[in-house]
Amino acid sequence: MSARGSDSGGIRLDQLGEDRLLRDILHGISTKAVAGGAAGDDCAVMKSQGCSKLLVLKTDCVVERVHFSRGTNGSAVGWKAMMRPLSDFAATSAVPEVALITLIVPEQLQVSWVKELYRGLRRAADRFKVSIVGGETSSTRGPIVVSTSVAGFVEPDRAVSRCGGRAGDELFVTGRLGCALKKKHLNFIPRIHESRWLTENFLIHAMMDLSDGLGTDLPRLARASKLGFKINVEKLPLARGATITNAISEGEDYELLFAISPRDRRRLQQGWRKKFPNLPLTRIGLLNPKSTIENRKLRGGYVHFQQSS
Amino acid sequence: MSARGSDSGGIRLDQLGEDRLLRDILHGISTKAVAGGAAGDDCAVMKSQGCSKLLVLKTDCVVERVHFSRGTNGSAVGWKAMMRPLSDFAATSAVPEVALITLIVPEQLQVSWVKELYRGLRRAADRFKVSIVGGETSSTRGPIVVSTSVAGFVEPDRAVSRCGGRAGDELFVTGRLGCALKKKHLNFIPRIHESRWLTENFLIHAMMDLSDGLGTDLPRLARASKLGFKINVEKLPLARGATITNAISEGEDYELLFAISPRDRRRLQQGWRKKFPNLPLTRIGLLNPKSTIENRKLRGGYVHFQQSS
Repeated sequence: MSARGSDSGGIRLDQLGEDRLLRDILHGISTKAVAGGAAGDDCAVMKSQGCSKLLVLKTDCVVERVHFSRGTNGSAVGWKAMMRPLSDFAATSAVPEVALITLIVPEQLQVSWVKELYRGLRRAADRFKVSIVGGETSSTRGPIVVSTSVAGFVEPDRAVSRCGGRAGDELFVTGRLGCALKKKHLNFIPRIHESRWLTENFLIHAMMDLSDGLGTDLPRLARASKLGFKINVEKLPLARGATITNAISEGEDYELLFAISPRDRRRLQQGWRKKFPNLPLTRIGLLNPKSTIENRKLRGGYVHFQQSS
Repeated sequence: MSARGSDSGGIRLDQLGEDRLLRDILHGISTKAVAGGAAGDDCAVMKSQGCSKLLVLKTDCVVERVHFSRGTNGSAVGWKAMMRPLSDFAATSAVPEVALITLIVPEQLQVSWVKELYRGLRRAADRFKVSIVGGETSSTRGPIVVSTSVAGFVEPDRAVSRCGGRAGDELFVTGRLGCALKKKHLNFIPRIHESRWLTENFLIHAMMDLSDGLGTDLPRLARASKLGFKINVEKLPLARGATITNAISEGEDYELLFAISPRDRRRLQQGWRKKFPNLPLTRIGLLNPKSTIENRKLRGGYVHFQQSS
């Protein structure tokens, strides 16, 4: 069987989409070890014999010309390669401990660039006291790939997934959305401290990090919780220079989106302002049995939310 | 700074070699969490709060045109992508539990090939009761990359690394060496059961799996144990059709190489024959303060052993 091309007349990946691919292909994978969540969730979370906490795993990669352009300096690529999986730990409210790096690079690559890359990886890991405990390299004739695997732990009563949202839950996002590809995607700080504070003080029903854009990620959270959502797009917290469309349609914000009981709203907002005075927390809507998108400024708001993906 | 090319006049990766790269670049990485072994070892092994066993991690990738050729069927690639890191678990005498898959593929790839790939991954995982608990995909314009991260555990008194060899230890290899690239590299079975039996019944001082060929890997084990080695290459167990040079210089055997006290030799050999009657176990030499390679048939035996890498 040929892996490529149109010769066999089968379906190509670009005709399927990532969510479909994961659903179709990962269907039937063994999930006996999974304590919470499932494939497609931000992290894998599982019980393990002899451990009081749950083991949390995430692997993630950045690919040249997909996640960074060719001229990007190594240090910024390293930062991003480490912080992306750490952002998934934030989504799960888990504490990352150790990381392994797989580096797939052309042999003509400059050693100095690779050293810069590791400097960025280390700087990012140090920020969250993560130890880089191993590495592997392989050569390629293709683009640079940096794959980062992170392991850590979470207390069983603090593990959060996308699945637990309830009808009537209020939806909050941290920070500001949109235009992250200008700069933020290379220097963002995963919301691990914020997430840990949230689960220390509140019952968070569902949470995820916004990596593909609110318009893609919010429907994922709602679907995982078997609900729709009602949001007012005019209330979205916009990054400087960003439009509502930017905030919905672009990715790489790495902010948290979470669902919490309306009973906790006041205490949450007051506590947050005191603890994180420089980071906005915005209530953007509700989880609802049916979806509604309120807006006057944005025509065709629905098309920005990929309900069917 | 440009990542590529000759414009900056710096050193390129192909002028350095993988061992040097890992030594130079991983130098100074944080190792506080590492209980045994170090970067460059087969697996990362670490203590974790609240766990009685040691956490063991390994990430590994297979790259199209490096680890498999373009026409290879997906199922065989999946098998290899899973079994390579499991072979590192064998080297550590650890029990793998869960795996995460990162798939980096061109969008024109046939979905049927990817389904075959997952079938191979699952078949391999099932063989060792490993659960695939998550996956991620990314597109690329380059070659297919399958990265597999595996987590598991090992009892503190059974974790083995490359470092513990002692002068006078006898060196053993399992199976037969050479010509693995003809077929074996796509259908080998990691020596996890054999390794677990070894550490259940013997004190194994140092161990690794042979992935880059005995001529590269044996010097690594000796160096990690701060010793040399004395081997008689005429005694190497050869795969069908393989020459001594094949057995030394080729890779992908995925057999175990280990060092054990000479006091245990007789009990080891008797026990092994009873437990694994169909798998040869061959004593190939000794760990020694200084290296000697005995051979009459192989001219320039030393050059096949990469002492300096």
